[in-house]
Amino acid sequence: MQKSSSASSLGPGGLDLTQTFFKPIQNTAPPSPTKRHTKISVIGVGNVGMAIAQTILTQDLADEIALVDAKADKLRGEMLDLQHAAAFLPRTKIHASVDYSVTVGSDLCIVTAGARQLPGESRLNLLQRNVDLFTSIIPPLAKYSPNTILLIVSNPVDILTYVAWKLSKFPSNRVIGSGTNLDSSRFRFLIADHLDVNAQDVQAFIVGEHGDSSVALWSSISVGGVPVLSFLEKEQISYEKETLENIHKAVANSAYEVISLKGYTSWAIGYSVANLARSILRDQRKIHAVSVFAKGLHGIDGGDVFLSLPAQLGRSGVLGVPNIHLTDEEAQQLRDSAKTLLEIQNQLGV
Amino acid sequence: MQKSSSASSLGPGGLDLTQTFFKPIQNTAPPSPTKRHTKISVIGVGNVGMAIAQTILTQDLADEIALVDAKADKLRGEMLDLQHAAAFLPRTKIHASVDYSVTVGSDLCIVTAGARQLPGESRLNLLQRNVDLFTSIIPPLAKYSPNTILLIVSNPVDILTYVAWKLSKFPSNRVIGSGTNLDSSRFRFLIADHLDVNAQDVQAFIVGEHGDSSVALWSSISVGGVPVLSFLEKEQISYEKETLENIHKAVANSAYEVISLKGYTSWAIGYSVANLARSILRDQRKIHAVSVFAKGLHGIDGGDVFLSLPAQLGRSGVLGVPNIHLTDEEAQQLRDSAKTLLEIQNQLGV
Amino acid sequence: MQKSSSASSLGPGGLDLTQTFFKPIQNTAPPSPTKRHTKISVIGVGNVGMAIAQTILTQDLADEIALVDAKADKLRGEMLDLQHAAAFLPRTKIHASVDYSVTVGSDLCIVTAGARQLPGESRLNLLQRNVDLFTSIIPPLAKYSPNTILLIVSNPVDILTYVAWKLSKFPSNRVIGSGTNLDSSRFRFLIADHLDVNAQDVQAFIVGEHGDSSVALWSSISVGGVPVLSFLEKEQISYEKETLENIHKAVANSAYEVISLKGYTSWAIGYSVANLARSILRDQRKIHAVSVFAKGLHGIDGGDVFLSLPAQLGRSGVLGVPNIHLTDEEAQQLRDSAKTLLEIQNQLGV
Amino acid sequence: MQKSSSASSLGPGGLDLTQTFFKPIQNTAPPSPTKRHTKISVIGVGNVGMAIAQTILTQDLADEIALVDAKADKLRGEMLDLQHAAAFLPRTKIHASVDYSVTVGSDLCIVTAGARQLPGESRLNLLQRNVDLFTSIIPPLAKYSPNTILLIVSNPVDILTYVAWKLSKFPSNRVIGSGTNLDSSRFRFLIADHLDVNAQDVQAFIVGEHGDSSVALWSSISVGGVPVLSFLEKEQISYEKETLENIHKAVANSAYEVISLKGYTSWAIGYSVANLARSILRDQRKIHAVSVFAKGLHGIDGGDVFLSLPAQLGRSGVLGVPNIHLTDEEAQQLRDSAKTLLEIQNQLGV
Repeated sequence: MQKSSSASSLGPGGLDLTQTFFKPIQNTAPPSPTKRHTKISVIGVGNVGMAIAQTILTQDLADEIALVDAKADKLRGEMLDLQHAAAFLPRTKIHASVDYSVTVGSDLCIVTAGARQLPGESRLNLLQRNVDLFTSIIPPLAKYSPNTILLIVSNPVDILTYVAWKLSKFPSNRVIGSGTNLDSSRFRFLIADHLDVNAQDVQAFIVGEHGDSSVALWSSISVGGVPVLSFLEKEQISYEKETLENIHKAVANSAYEVISLKGYTSWAIGYSVANLARSILRDQRKIHAVSVFAKGLHGIDGGDVFLSLPAQLGRSGVLGVPNIHLTDEEAQQLRDSAKTLLEIQNQLGV
Repeated sequence: MQKSSSASSLGPGGLDLTQTFFKPIQNTAPPSPTKRHTKISVIGVGNVGMAIAQTILTQDLADEIALVDAKADKLRGEMLDLQHAAAFLPRTKIHASVDYSVTVGSDLCIVTAGARQLPGESRLNLLQRNVDLFTSIIPPLAKYSPNTILLIVSNPVDILTYVAWKLSKFPSNRVIGSGTNLDSSRFRFLIADHLDVNAQDVQAFIVGEHGDSSVALWSSISVGGVPVLSFLEKEQISYEKETLENIHKAVANSAYEVISLKGYTSWAIGYSVANLARSILRDQRKIHAVSVFAKGLHGIDGGDVFLSLPAQLGRSGVLGVPNIHLTDEEAQQLRDSAKTLLEIQNQLGV
Repeated sequence: MQKSSSASSLGPGGLDLTQTFFKPIQNTAPPSPTKRHTKISVIGVGNVGMAIAQTILTQDLADEIALVDAKADKLRGEMLDLQHAAAFLPRTKIHASVDYSVTVGSDLCIVTAGARQLPGESRLNLLQRNVDLFTSIIPPLAKYSPNTILLIVSNPVDILTYVAWKLSKFPSNRVIGSGTNLDSSRFRFLIADHLDVNAQDVQAFIVGEHGDSSVALWSSISVGGVPVLSFLEKEQISYEKETLENIHKAVANSAYEVISLKGYTSWAIGYSVANLARSILRDQRKIHAVSVFAKGLHGIDGGDVFLSLPAQLGRSGVLGVPNIHLTDEEAQQLRDSAKTLLEIQNQLGV
Repeated sequence: MQKSSSASSLGPGGLDLTQTFFKPIQNTAPPSPTKRHTKISVIGVGNVGMAIAQTILTQDLADEIALVDAKADKLRGEMLDLQHAAAFLPRTKIHASVDYSVTVGSDLCIVTAGARQLPGESRLNLLQRNVDLFTSIIPPLAKYSPNTILLIVSNPVDILTYVAWKLSKFPSNRVIGSGTNLDSSRFRFLIADHLDVNAQDVQAFIVGEHGDSSVALWSSISVGGVPVLSFLEKEQISYEKETLENIHKAVANSAYEVISLKGYTSWAIGYSVANLARSILRDQRKIHAVSVFAKGLHGIDGGDVFLSLPAQLGRSGVLGVPNIHLTDEEAQQLRDSAKTLLEIQNQLGV
């Protein structure tokens, strides 16, 4: 944990115990400038940002965590609350500031900040306010950490990932949206729950636009390596398309359901984003459904657009996109989503 | 994750895939009745209860987690939010219900529920309302899990731990209050921060009543095994009593500070209680400052009272209390706290 | 760590510090008889047994580990070597004895003991000696832990798993052979290495008899949920059957290669078996390729036989076998293996 | 896991699946040159080196592990055995070579290689052969990783740490010997075992020369923060000096005992060194008893010498030495050890 201001406020009576408690050894040299440690910044300390920061801390994914928010009090309260757990955790430096300079040298910047919808406000107006907010967030992040990877969680995530890419002027492999990673996890949970298997044994992806128009890739679902649909076909078991649609609807409805019940979502998105952070920072080369620069893929053209596809993530960000086979219907849904996103983007001032 | 109601709501079109996807093997027998798995119940799904539940889930401390709260919607929202993370975590069954039968067979019950102070309400009145609340919580917990360990987190923790002990009729080793475990962690953080060492290398305890009258055990502070005060004495370094008092005050003030800044505390108490849960359930025999049955210790007499002392925790709950040496002043402070607590208890209807 | 004999050998000068260092609290009760903790026994402390025990210890999978071997010195040396690491690990009781009573109440018994081939000895003679060895191992394990799960690692694993089943008289779901779980891991590593992806994103199974006649399930290989062969077919990419066969040969040859280079295998089988232990003891319901009672599956008949199939594992052992589709060739290979195993079994005195 | 030669040996029929399986996304840029990842090299793949490497792998402390040894076959066998576990572990690159270039850019180099005593060989002659061995190990390590930290495990560890310091020309903070870190752990285990507490609650150090002349710091032993000796004094409990000496003797004898029983030590030193690696690479600022440059400390003069003292470790190596109070007798023992070490060093050709 970093030197907090609480400690320095111990006042004039404060002994500099460090000077007397430790002795230096001889013949030493200062640390080399190439010291490697891992720094993650989280922008926005609301329920989502804090669930992400706390999960990253518990899972010991970073040597340093920097929190940024416009609300100084809330920010300091969250920092202290995490710092007070120092005795239970590996030592991690935790900084917090309203000033973006605290993010300097980040390996990964996770943006969760976003405007809330005002009564009667149109979605487009809300989006424009979020775009405006990003103009105060992304450039300073890019300035203080020119080699960082940007991971956008704020909604609407696909458009805001595009906005972050434009504002940062980063190569597209270093700008990623959390996209449908969590939708895919919920999809796996519902299938696993239905079959009473471990969700980690279920391979299944939701892709496309994060939200109501997301696309479930039915043909690629497998459980323990067994492709489910082709299994059913070979066993000549008929299945109701309705059943599958109900599962997809349940996924699409999950976030709404949780929000209607508890007011917001936090834990699952926290685990989901921490999982992405691990794949990126520990160079795991794992495949996740995240929002990536999709122009030129699956017939998507007409402009620069981000939407979710299974993508291999590692220390350089997006390493590539597995060449999955979509049915004609699925590919068309993707292209329709891309078109809708482009139309919205064209109405924005970025 | 358990079978959630979402899955069962897939409707009449729902295939029973499980029947066709798996085949049984021959010559099997049903599971033996002595199947061992670890179940933790958390009562109260506010910020504190959920930070505890989520940290327990991330740290993989239980095979089954049951959540209980009076607010059905909030409860279901929190359960779903945790379940949606199934693909990122080891498989854990997560139940939630307003009915205490969901806690049946718990190894550990963690109680975080508590009434909030009404405007103008006296502390005694608030306390009596909490006592009344406990009469609806503790007996059903004891009924459904007669061998469980009760870990009380609700405030005022020392009195409510006493109340839980009375209501449960459990032996005293199976009723524990979180007490000054977190205060001690904050104490270690501030000392570690001051000396720029790892908080896990700092041994230091806050004992007594959780709150303003807690007692810092200065003489037993050591860093990396080096007793700090005797070190200063031997080095003939004078230290300002004021400095030490400032650190203690900062600790006592920590919770208030976090509450004033972010509105509540959550993360640190979550890690703190998860840490206690690990020591208990994994039979770690580690020493923690927690609220224990203190009658007969350090000259405390006059009645049944719980307050925090360093105590060794394991699978049977409190295993014993290290025979620490208190200065006369420290012992007197403890006895004064005990007396105050007893006076309050005498005014309560339990 | 348990009370070791080293401590008790401190001699007549030994203070009973425990009596003075801790004080009991009042009103306690002894621990309830239903205390739940997890105990794993490992039979055989050679390179394989110790790699398993040490990985289980590092991964914190058990509260108690019991080691059994016929060589008392080696056994005590391994126990002490693990115990000396106590300060770096969660507290785990480690027992060791030449007497099987040390295994009493085990949740899981892992058998790695086996006879070594004598110069000029026939395979059948070696096998009969291993069967004889098992008659001194399995009945005492079953006697001291009548509800345990037996996990057989000794080779030839399929036949010895059958032998353990016969000798234990356990239901078949509680007798499991490590089988082709490690072969499947090596298969995944080679495919992942070839594609430069994370091995955890590769689903692929080797099934059948552990050894030269094992069967690679090509049609069910998927990477990140994308079925590889059907992908190649749809992309109209021809692939050389020779390439796939080379990968399978490399897998089948892996153990031989490691043995020829370092003299034995240890680390990978250690991780592999620890992984099975986790799925079983933490009731993960995950699917692994392990040796199970296969009579009646995929047309296997003619007798009681164990060989590897993808199987769902949990706290009751084998929960079921996913209904995978085998090609006619694959199914025939399985039946041929079963027939060979049965012929060998018929020559044995069990 | 890295591309292994096994994969590349798939021959001319090998499909370059990677080219077809993944598609690039557009507008990307190559990874920045400041990619941070953690690399550990282990020199010597005997029982000690491999226990260290495997524990580091299990505990996920490095992104890349390089193994070096003179025996090419053994080396490749160990590498393959670790790689085959890829499906059970986070992705880690594992290299192995007889050529030191494989260690390029290491953050930490752990040296376990050492010559074995020949029949009738004098200790000095053996030492000189080890010094000669180090002239072929240390300069190439320093050349390929000029900013690395050297952690010496080979025995006699204090003198070989000095030799490594001389040969590397590194500042003293970047050359550390494993010293009495494991002795201290064994000390804690024996005390914890005696008191039936968790070894992690015991603070106790063995310092000085690793071996028969090591010094137990009795006065600084504390359990759960309670200083044991002063506790006994205050309670007016007499203790037999003989008891304490028996514990110290048991510690000093531990390695000999394990070696006499199983032929070598491995697991405990593996955990011990992995623990040091974590403190260093994750910048934990924790205090460990390790062999450091001790000239000028506790009255040690007369030459450059390394011996074990409690030292704070972090990303720069040795950060400082806590100013512990030694009794006159303890300090004299340290100075005597230093004198003996210097006399030996003067007879060596370094």
